[in-house]
This record gives sequence, structure tokens and C-alpha cells, in this order.
Amino acid sequence: MSPDAQFVLNTFAFLIWGALVMWMAAGFTMLESGSVRTKNASVICLKNLGLYAIAGLAFYVVGYNIMYVDVTGWIGSFSLFYTASDAEIALVGGNEAMKSEVIDNGYSVMSDWFFQMVFVATAASIVSGALAERIRLWAFFAFVLVLTAFIYPVVGAWTWGAGWLSELGFSDFAGSTIVHSTGGWAALAGAIILGPRLGKFKKDGTVTPTPPSSVPIVTLGVFILWFGWFGFNGGSQLALGSVSDAVSVAGILVNTNLAGAAGVLAAILVSRPILGGFDLFAILNGALAGLVSITAAPAMHQHWLAIVIGFIGGVICVLSIKLLDKLKVDDVVGAVPVHLFAGIWGTIAVAFTVREAGSFVDQLLVQLLGIGAVGVFVFAASFGVWKLIDVLLGGIRVTKTVERIGQDAAELGVDAYPEFVLMPEEYDDEDDK
Amino acid sequence: MSPDAQFVLNTFAFLIWGALVMWMAAGFTMLESGSVRTKNASVICLKNLGLYAIAGLAFYVVGYNIMYVDVTGWIGSFSLFYTASDAEIALVGGNEAMKSEVIDNGYSVMSDWFFQMVFVATAASIVSGALAERIRLWAFFAFVLVLTAFIYPVVGAWTWGAGWLSELGFSDFAGSTIVHSTGGWAALAGAIILGPRLGKFKKDGTVTPTPPSSVPIVTLGVFILWFGWFGFNGGSQLALGSVSDAVSVAGILVNTNLAGAAGVLAAILVSRPILGGFDLFAILNGALAGLVSITAAPAMHQHWLAIVIGFIGGVICVLSIKLLDKLKVDDVVGAVPVHLFAGIWGTIAVAFTVREAGSFVDQLLVQLLGIGAVGVFVFAASFGVWKLIDVLLGGIRVTKTVERIGQDAAELGVDAYPEFVLMPEEYDDEDDK
Amino acid sequence: MSPDAQFVLNTFAFLIWGALVMWMAAGFTMLESGSVRTKNASVICLKNLGLYAIAGLAFYVVGYNIMYVDVTGWIGSFSLFYTASDAEIALVGGNEAMKSEVIDNGYSVMSDWFFQMVFVATAASIVSGALAERIRLWAFFAFVLVLTAFIYPVVGAWTWGAGWLSELGFSDFAGSTIVHSTGGWAALAGAIILGPRLGKFKKDGTVTPTPPSSVPIVTLGVFILWFGWFGFNGGSQLALGSVSDAVSVAGILVNTNLAGAAGVLAAILVSRPILGGFDLFAILNGALAGLVSITAAPAMHQHWLAIVIGFIGGVICVLSIKLLDKLKVDDVVGAVPVHLFAGIWGTIAVAFTVREAGSFVDQLLVQLLGIGAVGVFVFAASFGVWKLIDVLLGGIRVTKTVERIGQDAAELGVDAYPEFVLMPEEYDDEDDK
Repeated sequence: MSPDAQFVLNTFAFLIWGALVMWMAAGFTMLESGSVRTKNASVICLKNLGLYAIAGLAFYVVGYNIMYVDVTGWIGSFSLFYTASDAEIALVGGNEAMKSEVIDNGYSVMSDWFFQMVFVATAASIVSGALAERIRLWAFFAFVLVLTAFIYPVVGAWTWGAGWLSELGFSDFAGSTIVHSTGGWAALAGAIILGPRLGKFKKDGTVTPTPPSSVPIVTLGVFILWFGWFGFNGGSQLALGSVSDAVSVAGILVNTNLAGAAGVLAAILVSRPILGGFDLFAILNGALAGLVSITAAPAMHQHWLAIVIGFIGGVICVLSIKLLDKLKVDDVVGAVPVHLFAGIWGTIAVAFTVREAGSFVDQLLVQLLGIGAVGVFVFAASFGVWKLIDVLLGGIRVTKTVERIGQDAAELGVDAYPEFVLMPEEYDDEDDK
Repeated sequence: MSPDAQFVLNTFAFLIWGALVMWMAAGFTMLESGSVRTKNASVICLKNLGLYAIAGLAFYVVGYNIMYVDVTGWIGSFSLFYTASDAEIALVGGNEAMKSEVIDNGYSVMSDWFFQMVFVATAASIVSGALAERIRLWAFFAFVLVLTAFIYPVVGAWTWGAGWLSELGFSDFAGSTIVHSTGGWAALAGAIILGPRLGKFKKDGTVTPTPPSSVPIVTLGVFILWFGWFGFNGGSQLALGSVSDAVSVAGILVNTNLAGAAGVLAAILVSRPILGGFDLFAILNGALAGLVSITAAPAMHQHWLAIVIGFIGGVICVLSIKLLDKLKVDDVVGAVPVHLFAGIWGTIAVAFTVREAGSFVDQLLVQLLGIGAVGVFVFAASFGVWKLIDVLLGGIRVTKTVERIGQDAAELGVDAYPEFVLMPEEYDDEDDK
Repeated sequence: MSPDAQFVLNTFAFLIWGALVMWMAAGFTMLESGSVRTKNASVICLKNLGLYAIAGLAFYVVGYNIMYVDVTGWIGSFSLFYTASDAEIALVGGNEAMKSEVIDNGYSVMSDWFFQMVFVATAASIVSGALAERIRLWAFFAFVLVLTAFIYPVVGAWTWGAGWLSELGFSDFAGSTIVHSTGGWAALAGAIILGPRLGKFKKDGTVTPTPPSSVPIVTLGVFILWFGWFGFNGGSQLALGSVSDAVSVAGILVNTNLAGAAGVLAAILVSRPILGGFDLFAILNGALAGLVSITAAPAMHQHWLAIVIGFIGGVICVLSIKLLDKLKVDDVVGAVPVHLFAGIWGTIAVAFTVREAGSFVDQLLVQLLGIGAVGVFVFAASFGVWKLIDVLLGGIRVTKTVERIGQDAAELGVDAYPEFVLMPEEYDDEDDK
């Protein structure tokens, strides 16, 4: 294949797979909007649209440079904005002499930016679900700005940006840790600081289930995410310009699908023994946990192993839903079980197929180091930022009154389904104390 | 074009069109979830997510091999699992010497698997809609396992697997019969065994309309399916590596769209005279019937003929909605009119443009033979499997109490819209007899 | 790259980007169905499915030829139907000798038709939202037929069809004016003739907000549109067969995304000062206004300028929402602010980066001329057609009784959410006068 054909195919792959990943933003929105109570289903839509916009702008202004430009082990450049190369601008302007210089890059500069940008948006989407129904809109937007401009890019610099973790041989193909666990740690820090929703965990130890506003909308969200995941993992090959790349991408899509399917199967089988009942939300999350699990190493030929990895991811997800309830951490959509715990599992599982760091044990140790380092950094940074926002904005949690009324009416003035008659909510006086 | 560029384009076409076909699973889910009564809108989501997972795993473990590997007229291999070729694995592992052997296959082995896998899921999706609101969850999953592991692959072996029907010249480009009618026959067998929902057909001969839970969600499902159909038909060219292939795929997308549009138009025009009123569901199904009709032969240059075929498909759909009501067959979403009857029509219409079997009459006879053979096999096999599951699981239909309460509350414990106040249902004592 | 590889890539780009634009039809459907009151949420689904079907058929029968074939300054050919070239048909038929003639066209003939067809559907989709809740179904379908068969193709002939505006140097890359403003002017003419919904504008000068049926469905629509816009703008490069094209398309997707994000940000910041409150619908429309604004010139390397253009588009959108209320023009979904006003702004902004007509001032004047000419023609033609339909069908507006009851019950006999209990509407006696 000629170098220009390779260039075009590589570039187009970034763009079309990237567009599919952008579509995952809609998936998170539907998943979260359907999962929250009806009184908060509008504001979560706004949060998701807003976070996608903020993430894109922040990653353009500073994020990408911190992550990829002149990375010196720990962090990249603080220069502002990012743009096509001079050679590309000259070529498009008609200077054909620049063509070979452009082609030498392998793909269009901005096509890579586009693909990386939709990934940072994914990380931010994970946070909104966990903190739903109680975080103030502006506090959330402020956190997203920091997460997408700094925290995520720093993790990215260590790894995909060729920083210190990358040099040690840490391997995370499409981001089980870099994207999903980063989002998960940030969400966990926020969930701990915010505390659970009113009445979620009773004094007698029982957990109050909160009714989802729309199960079909949640399901739609899961299907959107599954569909978009083909772009997420397939595009992470970062190339389509050779026979070998094409073969790899095909295997990646097959493994992605098998792992998701195995996650569904696992959750169907274990939700009753673990959770005490056949649980639709556990099964929907099982699909996502399977997908997260395979994300760190989808490029392998042992497809049966993708089934095993996805299945274990589904089991871990169901177990950790129960664990969070025990720990009284209120994660509205199960973002932490899906993205953090299954993400950790997926990153560990890399050691079975990848040997960038040496032996199985070497690779396993580096994977654990990476998981730990990212976890400590993201959790600590997020915790600090949440606390800072708490001080600066005078609180990150809505008032009890707002929580009772719902954020839609209180913060937006528009209910999600204003014409529909809703069940009256039952309140427990205990909650008001 | 160089052979490696052809390889990459062929492979990529399988993957991207295949991803669009996977997205159709979401379309069926929305179509069905919106069409059923609110009390069953959650469980149909689970059925659809579950069937997609089961289909993918079953087709990986046995289905693909039965359909495509070593097919000897009637059936392929019973070997387990399926995987990339040794040459591909070696190439990705760095052995460039294997490149020409890999390229000789024309496309990545697993990209074809991926594309075929999403087709088997489509066939299974058709069944869930017809049997909604009364089939037990586990009975449905058990049937899907057999359908996707054996029944569909056998039909596929006869045809796309180069078996006996293929040798006779039977032509079904993207599967009007192989996918859609197969799903339709399986659904019909199930619907007959299950019987209609309580109160659907009154003793006085009237048909009770059942309220859909959400018309916008149904409409979303139709649009998703239409969108995905470009992948379904366009990808069935099975190649994108030549000028001729590209021209063909362009024509396929044009014909697909025109036939769908003509199906809409037909249903708009004939729903009032045939059904006694302007009928939104008939029109939505008209779109799908137009799309199913053109699926057997979308690769043609007579675009006006696509309009005619789609239009007739729309009319057939509306007529057969009425027919099923007369026969007291309760098909909740119209899956049999859309996928079986329009699928038969589309397979017949092939004779106007394809001559693999000889003259028009020869082709027509082979098409009818194929329709008949697939119909007899799938209907009989499905009937038998349903009966077997009936015995093994102690019934495939939920109890009257569960049907009254709704499967969501009874089987899942979670309503689709738990916070919304619903109209009380009116019961007829007659139903309880 | 070899000419046949270029041909395949160009063709495939038309098809895959075009499929994404088709998906925007679902986006408009969701946006509009979620925005209208529940009593009209079914009929708007039918309108959108119907318009997509009518647009595709009309553009096939006459529209494309008027727009692109033998354009002589003002209008193209009135020949019927459109089809692949003889060379293409021969090549697919096996005549390899025709290959070079086919390749000379650069792309498959029907792939371009497909891409252009989905654009005309977009223009029609814009109209349905503005006139929702009061326009008669058949009157709307009749208008769509004329719009897509004649009005839009004439505008297209002047511009993309290489007619007089194109010769003057008018530049509108993906159709801020040609598609979006055309739809917007047609909508505005209809909205003026129809008048506002009952009770929308009170005698005391207040504007009655109408409750949306489903905010999450509206949000889904916005995300679908954003996703599809990558195809809308990226595909408008009309090529993918060279390094330069690939670089341009990458920049286009980046600018599209940044402008949409900036539109969100703008609306978040200005909706409170302008509209008196934080307004979710203004923010959702802000995203679309940002996307419309960049549509006329997304192929540029100054990405910061895309942010500026999108931001201003968002502000204009919010301002013009207020303006329409002042003028008592009832545009149910904000189609005129988004598609007409932001479209005009985007077309003006072209002058900052494009110089097809000469200097900045020359380009600006030609852009203004184009905006004016298209505006006068489309508004006048639409006004005339609406009036004609009014006479021929005996009215384009539903009766007060139908408007009270809702078009779903009155025109379709099926409510969008028939099982849900809705709030009783409050009526004002004033409305009945």
C-alpha cells in the first residue's frame, strides 16, 4: 500500500472510530438520565451535555499539550491550544511539496487530537453518573474542567504520552485504567465527600432502592455504549494502514463483543446468589463491566480468553455493587463497580497476554504499580479539587430542600416529564435529621 | 489498487458495516420496548440484551462453524470455537513473511465472523418482539440458544455457506429469507404455541388493541433499524476493495433507502382502506417491510424497481397485519408481517433481477424452493424446540397472574417507569375462563 | 495512491458520512417529539418518518436533476429519475474495459446522490419542528413534497450545482444557508401563516411556556444531531482520496466539535441575562446553533476561530429565541433561531476565512447577496406554497378542537404514551375567542 493510502486510512480510522466514541457521550447521558429518579432526569442531561462541551474545550486549550507534547516523564507542555502542523497547513493550502513531510507523520495531526478528545470526555462522563441527584451543577462543571484540563492529561502523559509508566512497560491498550479507572477514582472521591442521597442508607442497615425514571432509556444507553465501544477499542489500534493493523482491529472488535456478552451472561448467572434476586441493573452493568475489562488488552487472538476476562469482569461488577452498599458509598449508576473495579481487573488481566515489561510476574507488577500510581494520584487530586471547590463555591452538595424537590425543578425550573403524573415520594423523618 | 489496500478496505467494510448492524439490536429493543404495554417494557429490554449476548457466544462456540466451515451440502463442521488463521496470528506477531498468505484470503478472518455474528443476532431479535408480554424469560433464552447455535446456522449453511440451495442458484443477497424469514418462522411457531395474550381476541371476533408504552421509543427503534440497514445490505456486498464493489455498494444504499421510503408511502396510502383507519404502527412497520423486501436483491441499477418492491412490501405488511388478526395469531410488534411475509416477497422479487439459476422461471422456482425449504425446516425445528422447552421447563408461558401483573414486576421486580402513575387496566371476566 | 483506491475511498466517504446524516433524521424526530406537548408527540414522529420518505422519493424523481444536472445558472434539468452511469452499469456487469471511464468520475455516481439526498431530508426536518402541534398532517406532507422536489433543489442549483451564486464566489461549505437557512425560511413562512398555538401569546404580553413531553428524548435528539454533524460537515469535503482531503476532513471534525461546544458554553453563560433564567432548551439549542454556525466554513486551520464562531452562534440563538417571542412567532422547537439566524451568521462568518470572491469585503458582499437571494426566494416560494396548500386542502391548520385534544388522538387515534396519566391542561377562555 502506498504511504498516502496508509495516511488516509489511518486518519479516517481516527475520525470514524472517534465519532463512535463521541456517541458514547449520548450513551452515558441516557444511562444516567434513565437511572436517576424522575425529579433529577433533566439536570443530568444538562450535566452530560455540558461536560462534553467543557471537556472538548479544555482538552483543546491545555489538556492535549499536557498529555502528549514534549512529555518529560511526568508531564508534557503547558503551551496553549493545539493545531495542525505547518506542513499540513501548507499542503492543504496547495503546496504539494509538503506532502511527503505530512505523510511522514502517518496520520493527520488533528485526527489524533479528535480521537483523544473523545476519550477525555468519556472519563468525565463516568463521574456524572456516580454523583447524580445531589451534586450542584456548577460544582460538577468546575470539577470537570480540572479533570479534563489537568488530572486526566497527567495520567495520560505517564502512559500514552510515553511518560514514566510507559517506560516501565505498563500496558493499557484502550484505557481500562487510563480512562475508566481515572473516571472511577474521581467519581469515588466525589461520592465519598458528597455522602449518600437522603434516605439511601437507613440506620437499620437496609439500603433503599431508588426508582429509575426510565428503564428503556437506561437500556438504550447501554446499547449506545456497546456500539461506541467498537470505536473506543478498535480505534485504539491507532492505525488502519496495513494488513497487520486490519487483522488486529478485527480481533479487537470480536474480543470486545465477546467480553461484553460474557459480562451479561455472568451478571445473569450471579446476580441472584450475590444480590438476592435477579437484578436488571446488575445485568446492564455487567455488559459494561465486561466491556471495560477487555479494554486494557483487546488485541489478542485468544478469543476464549476475552470471554473469561469479560465474565470475571461481570462477576466483579456484581460483587462490588454489593460492596459499595456495605460501605455506604452511594454510586447512583454503578459507575465505580463498572469503571473502577472492572477497570482494575482488566488492567491486571493484561499480564496474561502482554509482555512489555518482561515475564508474567514483571508485567503483573508493573500493571499493579500503574493501577496504584494512577489510583493514588487521581483519588488524591480529585479529593483535593472537590474540597477546594467545596470551599470556593460554598458547598458542592445541594440543600436538603433541593434534594427533596429535585434538581430539575430547583436548579433548572424544568421537569424532565412535566406533563406526567408521578407517584408521591415517601419520606422518612429520619432523613431530615 | 494494491492487494494489501484491498485487504484493508474489505476488512474495514466488514467491521464498520457490522458495527452498524450490531446497532440494530438497539433498534429492535426500542421498537419492542415501546410497543409493549408499560408493565412489560423492562423485561423486553432484558430479553434483547440477553439475546444479543447469547447469540454472540453461541455463534462463536458452534454456530459459525456449522454455517461456514467444511459445509458438505447440508451442514458444516461441529468443531468448537473459531479463530484467526495461523498466518494472521503469525503476521500480527511480526512474521512479515506470512503477509501474502494473509492477503490471499481477501479480508481478515475474524472481520467476517464479526459481520456474520451480528446477522444471527438480528434473526433472534425478530423472535422476541412477536412473543412479548407472555413468554417466560428463561424459555425465551433457551430458544435463542438453539436458534443461534443450530437452526440459523443450518439455514446459513444451505445458502451463504455454499450448501445445496446455493448450488441450485438460490439467491438472497443480504437475507430476506435467510435472516428475516428465519426469524419470522421461528416467531410464528412460538406465537402459535404460546397463543394470544389474555383478552387480545374476544369471543365476539373483535381484536383488542393494546396500548404501546411509548410511541416515540418505537419510532426511535425504526430509525435505528433503517440506519443500521445500510450496514446490513451494504456490508453484504462482502467487499469494498475494488471500483466495482464500491459502485455496487452505492447502489445498494440507494435502493435500500428508496425501498424503505416506498414502504412508508405504501402504508400511508393503504392503511386506511385495509385497516379502517390511518394506522401509525402499520406505517412504522411499512418502513421495515420495505427494507426487508429489498434485502434479498439490493444490488441492482434499476432504482425505480426498488421503489416498486418496497411499495409492494409495504402493502403486503399491512395486509398481513390484518390476516394475522383474522387467524388470531398474536404478534405483538408485527414481526411476522414485516420479517416473514415481506421477506418472502423480497425473496420472490429476486427473480426479476437475478439469473443465477437460469431463466426467470428457473430462478423463480428456485427462490420458491428456498423459501419453502427454509420455511419447513425453521418452522418445524422451532416448533419442536418450543415444545421441548415447554416440557423441560414446565411451560413456556407465564401464568395468568404474571400476565395480569406484568412480567416486569413479576419476573424482574422492577417496573420500566416505576415513578409514573399509570391508567388502571380494564379486565374482562371472559379472559379468566 | 492509485486512482481506483481514490475512487473507492471517495465513494465510501459519501456513503458512510451520508449514513450518519440520515441518522440526523432520527435526531430531529427525537428533538421534536420530546419538545412538543405529550398530546402531539406521536404525530410528530409520523411527520418526521413521512418527510424522510417523501424527501428521498422526491429528490430521486426530480430533485437531484433540478439541482445538479445541466444547471444553466438558475436551474437544472427537469428530466425524471437519476441513475448510475452506463459505464458503471457495464463495469458492475463485468465489462472491465469501462473501469477507467468509471474512475474518471472520481466517485460512484449514486454515492453522491445518496449524500445529497440526506441533506434535502435535513432541510425538511427543520420545518416540522417549527410548525408542530398545529399544522395538519397532509398539509405538511404536501409542503415537504414541494420543498424537496423544487424549492431546495433550486437553491442548490444556484450554489452547489454551480449556478449563478456559485459563479459569483458565494461560499457555503456544508450548507449553513443552503440547507439550514432554507429549512429555516420555509419554517418561518409557515409559522407566520399558521400563527401561534392557542394560548401561546397572551393579551397581556406574556408568553406561556408549553411543557415538553420528555426532556431526555430532546437531549437524545441533540446528541444524535451532533454525532450526525460529523458526517454532515466531514462528508461535505466530498472526497477522501488524498492526503490533503484527509487533513481537511480531520480539521473539519475538530472545528465542528469545538463550535458545538462553544455554542453550549455561550448559551450556558448568556441564557440567564437574556432570558431571565438558566434555560435548558436554550442550552440544547445553543449546541445546535454552534454546529450550524460552523457549517458554512468548517475547513480551516484556525481552530480558535471555530470556538469564536460557535460561541457567537450560541449567543445569537438565545437572543433570537427572545426576539421571536417578542414578534409573537411561535416556533415550537426553536428551529428558526438555530437554523435560520445561526445559519445566516455562519454564512457571514465565511468571509473571515474564504476568499473565493476576492477581498474580505467582496466576499462579505457576495455572502450577504447569497443570504438575501436565498432568503427572498425560499421565503416567498414557501409563503406561496403554504397559501396554495391552504386553498387546495381547505386549511393548513387543525381546528381548535383538534388542537385542544391533541393531534395524536384526533388525527392518529393513538396517544404517544397512552397508559400514562397526564396532568390536566389549564385552559384560558381567552384562547377560545
